[in-house]
Amino acid sequence: MIKWFKKISSRFQKDGNFFFEIEKITGFRPRSEAYYELALRHSSASRENRGRKVNNQRLEFLGDAVLGAVVADFLYDQYPAAGEGFLTSMRSKIVSRKHMNQLAIQIGLHKMLVKKTPRNTHAKSIYGDAIEALIGAIYLDRGYDACKTFIEERVLRQQVDLERLENRIASHKGALLEWGQKNKRQIVFEVTGCWGESHARKYEITVLLDGEALGTGKGTSKKRAEEEAARLAYQTITDKT
Amino acid sequence: MIKWFKKISSRFQKDGNFFFEIEKITGFRPRSEAYYELALRHSSASRENRGRKVNNQRLEFLGDAVLGAVVADFLYDQYPAAGEGFLTSMRSKIVSRKHMNQLAIQIGLHKMLVKKTPRNTHAKSIYGDAIEALIGAIYLDRGYDACKTFIEERVLRQQVDLERLENRIASHKGALLEWGQKNKRQIVFEVTGCWGESHARKYEITVLLDGEALGTGKGTSKKRAEEEAARLAYQTITDKT
Repeated sequence: MIKWFKKISSRFQKDGNFFFEIEKITGFRPRSEAYYELALRHSSASRENRGRKVNNQRLEFLGDAVLGAVVADFLYDQYPAAGEGFLTSMRSKIVSRKHMNQLAIQIGLHKMLVKKTPRNTHAKSIYGDAIEALIGAIYLDRGYDACKTFIEERVLRQQVDLERLENRIASHKGALLEWGQKNKRQIVFEVTGCWGESHARKYEITVLLDGEALGTGKGTSKKRAEEEAARLAYQTITDKT
Repeated sequence: MIKWFKKISSRFQKDGNFFFEIEKITGFRPRSEAYYELALRHSSASRENRGRKVNNQRLEFLGDAVLGAVVADFLYDQYPAAGEGFLTSMRSKIVSRKHMNQLAIQIGLHKMLVKKTPRNTHAKSIYGDAIEALIGAIYLDRGYDACKTFIEERVLRQQVDLERLENRIASHKGALLEWGQKNKRQIVFEVTGCWGESHARKYEITVLLDGEALGTGKGTSKKRAEEEAARLAYQTITDKT
């Protein structure tokens, strides 16, 4: 009897703590614990249910979309005169895997994640995935408006330095193309070289501004070469103007 | 006096019609007309406001994100046992530009768009953009839940054939990689050829399954060559299994 009581009370203790920890992060008490338990279960620690692996990936899919909507709404409000190009670029920077991972650690979510993976694989994205799964859980538990409150109050306003993000260029290729469109100048990326065996192929890409070479980049993928070429071209342009 | 009365009543008439047309499409009366007027103004028919072009592009940015969230929620509910790979792929198919354009025409939105572009440029995406802008307008006018009702009731349930979409493969490369992951087989895309002058470069790409060549594709871009190689490889696999 005492044993049973101890077991029950320790479970209540645990649940109480879990609720409390979630509340510390989200700002409100969860209604249904199950969503949050699932949100914090990384795929390396999946449960089995009728032959199906149960972990936070489905909630991450849902939360990622809700996050996108809330951030879009926030930026639409925050920058009433900005064009959709700027809004899109700001949103990409906010919801980038690297940034979300960092935010998850800032709000203390990393301590709560249930996982069974070696330490060094964590850094990449699992906390960013977990914060999205948490948003999915809040959405199912309390609805869209609660997600909006959580993301705006606890994440965007407290943890995100918008001004710093504004000045960080996520993609030089994107910035260059946007500049071209705005200034009605033609920007073309041309593969000007490609060599090496298939396992070690290299590319050279040149940016042409109205047909004139403006920057050349090399890289082990076309994307890398493009980005390098665009960075140099963008520098040349912004130095001039 | 009669002239003034005529002017006023004709404006009421016009507004009344506009409200009514919006109601026919969305299922409810708009509260603030201005959002909808903006949503239906294509960039070719921009208004000027303090040197800034005013059209539906900002609302499209917002509505696109809200659409993504509602569709994610809908699919999460609709397919309780599906993995996030399937959910992501279904969402891509639903919100693809081509599909949204088609849906906008099905619900009659194309007749309401204000635009000044030649006829043949319409087909591509402007109606799909407008339906997203309309969702942005509903969001600002009536909130997230109204968007959810509109998208689920008027678009997804009435206009979308989920079963048909399930069977349509959006990207053979994606399908192949998913198959590999599910069956724990290694899929590698290797550039096995690359030739021609820069303005007419061609690529050859081979798909390797656990190191063995399974399909080879050629194309004027790496992406095209990959897709062709993946299509052949996927056919080989699905014929066997």
